[in-house]
Amino acid sequence: MTKTILTGIKPTRQIHLGNYIGAIKPALDLAKIEDYRSAYFVADYHGLTKIHNAEEFRHLSYGIAATWLALGLDPDMVIFYRQSDVPDIFELNWILSCFTSKGLMNRAHAYKALIDSNKKSEKDIDFCVNMGLFNYPVLMAADILMFKTEVVPVGKDQVQHVEITRDIAESFNNTYGETFLLPEYKIQENTAVLPGLDGRKMSKSYNNTIPLFEDPKKLQKLINKIKTDSLLPEAPKDPDRSTIFMFIKNLLLILKLKR
Amino acid sequence: MTKTILTGIKPTRQIHLGNYIGAIKPALDLAKIEDYRSAYFVADYHGLTKIHNAEEFRHLSYGIAATWLALGLDPDMVIFYRQSDVPDIFELNWILSCFTSKGLMNRAHAYKALIDSNKKSEKDIDFCVNMGLFNYPVLMAADILMFKTEVVPVGKDQVQHVEITRDIAESFNNTYGETFLLPEYKIQENTAVLPGLDGRKMSKSYNNTIPLFEDPKKLQKLINKIKTDSLLPEAPKDPDRSTIFMFIKNLLLILKLKR
Repeated sequence: MTKTILTGIKPTRQIHLGNYIGAIKPALDLAKIEDYRSAYFVADYHGLTKIHNAEEFRHLSYGIAATWLALGLDPDMVIFYRQSDVPDIFELNWILSCFTSKGLMNRAHAYKALIDSNKKSEKDIDFCVNMGLFNYPVLMAADILMFKTEVVPVGKDQVQHVEITRDIAESFNNTYGETFLLPEYKIQENTAVLPGLDGRKMSKSYNNTIPLFEDPKKLQKLINKIKTDSLLPEAPKDPDRSTIFMFIKNLLLILKLKR
Repeated sequence: MTKTILTGIKPTRQIHLGNYIGAIKPALDLAKIEDYRSAYFVADYHGLTKIHNAEEFRHLSYGIAATWLALGLDPDMVIFYRQSDVPDIFELNWILSCFTSKGLMNRAHAYKALIDSNKKSEKDIDFCVNMGLFNYPVLMAADILMFKTEVVPVGKDQVQHVEITRDIAESFNNTYGETFLLPEYKIQENTAVLPGLDGRKMSKSYNNTIPLFEDPKKLQKLINKIKTDSLLPEAPKDPDRSTIFMFIKNLLLILKLKR
C-alpha cells in the first residue's frame, strides 16, 4: 500500500553542507522509497512569522525551492507546491482553529521555548510574540490534514507537532465523523553529521559552516580555514581526529547511499 | 465622496422583533444613505467558533441570509456575500496574524469576558476556549481590511474590534508601506428599544421575545401573553406604562423612518 508522506520546507537563510547531509538528503531519499507517495512544499507562510522583509521573503522562498530542485527534488516524480498557492490550506486553518483548545497551544514547544529562553513572564513575552507564531501548530495541522498525509518525517523536536495534529483531527472527527486521517510521524535518523570548519558539528550558531552556494574564491578561503593539527604534512594522521578525513568519510557515505 | 461601509451578519438563532428594530433595520437603513457604498456579509465562519453542529450551522447560515433578504436587503443595490465563499479572507487572516501581537489578543473583550465570567484562571479556561474564539479579532480585521472598508457600524461593545483592526493595519503598514486603509467605527444609536412580552427590553435572555418568523397560531398565543394591567378595557390607560402602546409607538416610528 502506497502511503502519502509530506515534507515541509521552511525558507531558510544560508543553506550549508550540514543541512544537506543532515536533513535535505534524507528527506529527498524518501522519494526513492516505493511505498511512499512523496509530497514536498515550500512553507513560505510559516516563514512569515519571522521574516517581515518583503524582498527577503520572496528571495528566500524562491531560493529554497531552487536549492531543493538543484539538490535532486524531481517535480515529475513527486508532488511539489508552494503553501501560499493553496488558499484552501488557510481556510482549513481557520476551521481547525475552532477545534483546537487554546490550552493545547500554550503547551506547544516553540511558544514555551520563547518564554523559557527569555526568562520573562507570559504576559511580558506576549507583546513580542505574534499570533502567527502562537498559531503555527494549527497551520501545520492544516498542511498535514489537507492532503490526507499518512506519514510525516520529523526531527525529534518536531514530534509534538504531529501529536498536536492528531489531537486536532480527533477533535474534529469526534464532532463530524471520520473526516481526517490521523497521521503518523517518522523520526528521521541523521545518517551523518558533518563537522564544521572548526571540527565541531556544522551549525550556523557556531559560525563554522560551508555554504552550499558560494563564490569559488570565498569557498576556497573557507576551506583553508579548516583546523588541522601541527603535524608535518607527511606525518601519519589519526582519521578519527582529523576534520578533513571526517569530511571525506561522510561524503563517501553519501556517494554509497546514492547507489 | 462615497465611503465603503461593511456590516457583518453573524448566524444567530431565533431572530426576534427586538433584533429587527434595534439592529437589523438600522443596518439596512445605511444602504439608503447616498454617501455610502454598503456591503453586507454572512459571517458564517465566525459562527463556527460556537456552533459545531453541521446541520444547525448550515441552517443558521442560510436562515440569516434569508431573514435579511426578507427584511429588505437588496442584493442588486448593495454588495452581499458569504464569508466562507471568499478564501482570500482566510489567507489574509494568516498574514495579519503574523502582524498581531499575542498581547493584543489577551486584552480582547470576548476572551477576557470569558475569563471574568467563569471566575477561573487563564490556564484553566484555556482548555475550554478554542483558538477560533481567541483569534477572531484577527479574522474580523481580515474581513474589514480585505475590501478597503472605510466605515464599520458597531454597537458600543464592538468598538474595541475596530480599534484592534486599526492596530493590526498600522503594524502591517509600518512594515510594508501604506497598504490598508484604517477603518473608522460608527456607533449605531439604537433608534428604538422594543419592550418584550413582559414589558422589559425584548431579549432572548429574558425569554420575552416575539420571533420574526413564527407559526400564526403560536404567534397569537405569544401576543396574548403581553402583560396588561387590571383596568377595565374601556378605562383610560397611561401610554407610558402600557406595553401594547409602546409597541404601537415604536412601530409608528419605524413606519415614519421608512419614508
